[in-house]
Amino acid sequence: MDCIKATLDRIKPVNPDLLERAQLLLDNKTKPLGSLGRLEEFARRVSAISGSQQPDVSKKVVFTFAGDHGIVEEGVSLFPKEVTPQMVLNFLSGGAGINVLARHVGADVRVVDVGVDYDFAEVTGLIHKKVSNGTQNFAKGPAMTREEMLTALNVGIELAEQCRIEGVGLVGTGEMGIGNTTPSSAIIAAISGKTVAEVTHRGTGIGDEALLNKIRVIEQGLGINKPDPADPLDVLTKVGGLEIAAIAGLVLGCAANSIPVVIDGFISTAGALIASELHPNVRDYIFAAHQSVEIGHRFMLERIGARPILDLDFRLGEGTGAALAMGLIEAGVKILNEMATFEQAGVSR
Amino acid sequence: MDCIKATLDRIKPVNPDLLERAQLLLDNKTKPLGSLGRLEEFARRVSAISGSQQPDVSKKVVFTFAGDHGIVEEGVSLFPKEVTPQMVLNFLSGGAGINVLARHVGADVRVVDVGVDYDFAEVTGLIHKKVSNGTQNFAKGPAMTREEMLTALNVGIELAEQCRIEGVGLVGTGEMGIGNTTPSSAIIAAISGKTVAEVTHRGTGIGDEALLNKIRVIEQGLGINKPDPADPLDVLTKVGGLEIAAIAGLVLGCAANSIPVVIDGFISTAGALIASELHPNVRDYIFAAHQSVEIGHRFMLERIGARPILDLDFRLGEGTGAALAMGLIEAGVKILNEMATFEQAGVSR
Repeated sequence: MDCIKATLDRIKPVNPDLLERAQLLLDNKTKPLGSLGRLEEFARRVSAISGSQQPDVSKKVVFTFAGDHGIVEEGVSLFPKEVTPQMVLNFLSGGAGINVLARHVGADVRVVDVGVDYDFAEVTGLIHKKVSNGTQNFAKGPAMTREEMLTALNVGIELAEQCRIEGVGLVGTGEMGIGNTTPSSAIIAAISGKTVAEVTHRGTGIGDEALLNKIRVIEQGLGINKPDPADPLDVLTKVGGLEIAAIAGLVLGCAANSIPVVIDGFISTAGALIASELHPNVRDYIFAAHQSVEIGHRFMLERIGARPILDLDFRLGEGTGAALAMGLIEAGVKILNEMATFEQAGVSR
Repeated sequence: MDCIKATLDRIKPVNPDLLERAQLLLDNKTKPLGSLGRLEEFARRVSAISGSQQPDVSKKVVFTFAGDHGIVEEGVSLFPKEVTPQMVLNFLSGGAGINVLARHVGADVRVVDVGVDYDFAEVTGLIHKKVSNGTQNFAKGPAMTREEMLTALNVGIELAEQCRIEGVGLVGTGEMGIGNTTPSSAIIAAISGKTVAEVTHRGTGIGDEALLNKIRVIEQGLGINKPDPADPLDVLTKVGGLEIAAIAGLVLGCAANSIPVVIDGFISTAGALIASELHPNVRDYIFAAHQSVEIGHRFMLERIGARPILDLDFRLGEGTGAALAMGLIEAGVKILNEMATFEQAGVSR
């Protein structure tokens, strides 16, 4: 818990003077004032977060955290649990959606095992940070011990520290874990007080009957575990997931290290929500990549206070939405760094 | 008119079998069915339009057409008319917004003078297709002669033909012309029957009084010219612009040559609207880049039947929204071309 506290203590609000200074630079570019809309917002925020008037986001990394979920034994997912390690291997060989989209925007994909129920011992290219072989079934008791949750959270924090050392300018979050929309719905229900039905959707594509079962299972899990909404780490421990804890840690670590962090869809936003409930200033460092098809997502974004960048009907996860949004954020930074001013171009105001 | 007719005759509807075949390929990729949402739509449509199951969009071009407008003498714009040629020179030296964003997505920018009131004779790098030194003031009479309109339309058609010869896989539209939101509002008002006030907005950022004047000027122009809503080329001639005519031609030419075309914001969509009113199948080839801040834009998109890809509060033009959307469309194509199938990756369905 000491490491978490030390990280929280380092999270400062972004300086509004730096936002204003960046906007002044943008206002000198050869375009009508404000006419590049949100691209100017991205440029202004990345400039203020990084403390640079020429931010460098050439190094971009998407972290895809993988973990398994005891809750899948309740039949909440369309896909079998074996798909989690199979997809991890797919990420490592470059054939998954996140690989294609990260390559497209010039970002690295780093795949982190925080809790897959599979022995990857001989596998290279993977970041080995397994905390356990997946969570327990939270319909019957806590998903994790407090110790496991803290260990997974620290995995994320340490990866963010490493990014600062490497000079990574923009970080994206992603995840893989069969069944993980279920803990994500449980987290937003627990924290917001919304009913489970209001925040629970079809995940990879379950039918009506399976959706009713998923809602019932989450209600049972919340009833048995009674997570304390005022204690985000209690919620995370009891009904969360190891990859969600790692994402929460990554977001905290990015905020502590002044790195803008782009959160992907429903599951990633559950992690970011935990982080922003722990410290309000975390919000200053978050970019919400996209609006997910999952119905609970908008309540998370409202609570974080983030407006999604894209709305492309995604519901894949892995970091796919984050990757595309990182490309747009970089476009905004290039507007700041590369566009001519009225003076340079000899254009009348 | 013969060349226009020949072009219209070549525009076929996109084959629905090809759309279905592309979706089958996407459904074999390692992801839940349909989980990449609109990216799958982009891949499917580009595949069907180009007639290839491995579409090549590596060659991408944004055309930025420039023209001046007699209507500016009515005080409809915040910027003086000199800014049109100044910005053309800015495009050619690579310092404008469109240059930055096109570079970011790997697209070429081709700048076309169709009607700037400036002598670019000695300027290299520009595509010289000047039809006249700008339109006439349409508050007092027709903006162009029918001959001028047809010449400008043909400029766009011929550039699309050239793209087919060069193997360009994706075309974007853009424009520069101080005052050109005014003819664009006039076009959508004339074609849709909406009131001028419903479709007229602040352009580069005019105040309340100037907005009322802009509305009054457009009403006067429509009253004097009486464009025939059933004859899109009459609307274009009387209250349009040379760059808008060239964009209409480019869209027609892309449709005739089976090239997907990404239309930028308000002014580009006015051109695309003329094209899609001329031939309904044109719609099959159009991608709407983004939702502009201009209030008349959504009526144009509704009439074309296109859902915008991005919503980033842009109101710059030049092709800036088109460039970013082209990057996303290419991402969709890469999903089709590069993602592993369940079989290749050994992932359970």
